[in-house]
Amino acid sequence: MKTLLLSKEDVSRLISNRDVIGAVEDAYKAFSSGQVEQPDYLSIHLPAPRGEIDFKLGYYKVNETISMKASSGGFKNNPESFGLPTGMGTIILFDAQSCALTCVMDGSLITGLRTGASGAVSVKALARKNASKIASIGTGNQARMQIRAINEVMKIDEIYAWSRTAETLAKFKDDIESELGIPVIVTGSKQQAVEKADILITTTRGLGAPVEAAWVKPGTHIVAIGTDQRGKQELEPEIFRNAKIVVDSIVQCTEKGETWHPLNRNIITRDDIYAEIGDILLGHKPGRENDDEVTIFDSTGMAIQDITTAARIYRNAIEQNVGTPFEFFS
Amino acid sequence: MKTLLLSKEDVSRLISNRDVIGAVEDAYKAFSSGQVEQPDYLSIHLPAPRGEIDFKLGYYKVNETISMKASSGGFKNNPESFGLPTGMGTIILFDAQSCALTCVMDGSLITGLRTGASGAVSVKALARKNASKIASIGTGNQARMQIRAINEVMKIDEIYAWSRTAETLAKFKDDIESELGIPVIVTGSKQQAVEKADILITTTRGLGAPVEAAWVKPGTHIVAIGTDQRGKQELEPEIFRNAKIVVDSIVQCTEKGETWHPLNRNIITRDDIYAEIGDILLGHKPGRENDDEVTIFDSTGMAIQDITTAARIYRNAIEQNVGTPFEFFS
Repeated sequence: MKTLLLSKEDVSRLISNRDVIGAVEDAYKAFSSGQVEQPDYLSIHLPAPRGEIDFKLGYYKVNETISMKASSGGFKNNPESFGLPTGMGTIILFDAQSCALTCVMDGSLITGLRTGASGAVSVKALARKNASKIASIGTGNQARMQIRAINEVMKIDEIYAWSRTAETLAKFKDDIESELGIPVIVTGSKQQAVEKADILITTTRGLGAPVEAAWVKPGTHIVAIGTDQRGKQELEPEIFRNAKIVVDSIVQCTEKGETWHPLNRNIITRDDIYAEIGDILLGHKPGRENDDEVTIFDSTGMAIQDITTAARIYRNAIEQNVGTPFEFFS
Repeated sequence: MKTLLLSKEDVSRLISNRDVIGAVEDAYKAFSSGQVEQPDYLSIHLPAPRGEIDFKLGYYKVNETISMKASSGGFKNNPESFGLPTGMGTIILFDAQSCALTCVMDGSLITGLRTGASGAVSVKALARKNASKIASIGTGNQARMQIRAINEVMKIDEIYAWSRTAETLAKFKDDIESELGIPVIVTGSKQQAVEKADILITTTRGLGAPVEAAWVKPGTHIVAIGTDQRGKQELEPEIFRNAKIVVDSIVQCTEKGETWHPLNRNIITRDDIYAEIGDILLGHKPGRENDDEVTIFDSTGMAIQDITTAARIYRNAIEQNVGTPFEFFS
């Protein structure tokens, strides 16, 4: 019985943004059609100054794959003390027919890639067809991931970017302009960026002042990425009042996503959530219906995105004969 | 960053019964002194005729190890359909200081070994010093594991064995006599075996008629292994009425161990449970106090036993330079 080992370098060779977007679409569809079992996840919190490690598990019935992702984060002393990153990841895959261990792969790239792809999937389903200007509130790693993935599904003319830190902002402009050739306009306030946006992406840690409703022009599509815990918030809840609200998972988003805030303030009720994005991708409900709607995609992230992405990486590895086989038993 | 890979063959070279007994003692002590974090475990049940896969997680503070064991079972078509065992296992270890992945090892031997060792640990703490005769109700793989481990901690003169299946029983006799040189006396009934016992081991699937209280002579130590779910039962609950009841985990044993049955029948209350075995090993409470007590050790199995055993295997591998290093990222 051979298990395939895939290093971070193997993984990065084996998967394109386009592949990940396909994998994340598969994930949302599978989730909304009951083709997925995702038990609650387990965490161990280490004493400070260490961080935590999470274990997420899923069973993807369509291709009979079970996956477990262990991902750590917040180990801020790792670089200095051990020469290691502050967070790492490992994904293991099982063939659900036999529960044989088919693959152990580095998981440090997948979370960023699949989160980036989630925004692009929502853009395909919910942004205006003539959208061309993006506002990026937040200019860290995940902002880059969002731009790279969205760049696969539409032509971006300009990016209006804002960050608290001038240095980060300048670096973002340099990186994106040289990597993708898209002009990045640095703005002096969040408002200046948001007012320009056909598509607004928020990827901050969710601790600053939220984007205000008055700034958002009709027809904007909002990709809300940064909020995956109750303490975080990126949008003024008022934005939700008249928007078309689409979520990755109703259960998760009403518990701990951006959507929790307007619910908590009674600005919307649960019934005002229009759909899970999987329902739109499956054709059960239309996406955007006119050019004036404000659409919001609240993404909290789901284990199934890791599974479908990891399964595609594994399939590519087999097809392209990449990786190192190891026999754990004979 | 190198991760050590250990095959089943490596694991079997790296760990002796004596080592496992030490590791399981460490586990019980760590559990009863709060040196362990064991979140609830996650399971995925596959549709019949497939089985299930469980994911158990633990953080062992003493040596800063986090481990996750994935173990499958009940895939009865695996041998014929895939040439694979009906159950498999994988253990991954993390250094809790950094959450780096230190080791991926085959986990198919560990569960059997550490379960075997649990009985031996209880024999040291609870059996009469002059105990020499064992009754084995059940003669499968786990019965062999129990005998092998107990043979490390005492001199066994005779084994009285019973099984529903004559063939299994004959094979058990042959195997044990040739492997360990201990005479095995086949009995025609459970009662005949139990009546002879200084130590009674039950390792059936817990679905047959239970061992009756009237058969158990004073001074017997009972190792109850087979019951780890509510549907299973190996002992008449009446046996618990006047026995010294020791468990691996009060929470688990009152929920789903052999101890659940007398609790459910109001034959005992929770207060009648004498101790967790860790408390005895730590010296907080005496073990056996006279030669007439009937002692019961109810073992449901805990993730921490896997962790301490796997951590010892990993330590031995490093010391003995066994295993295959693999770089998941550099």
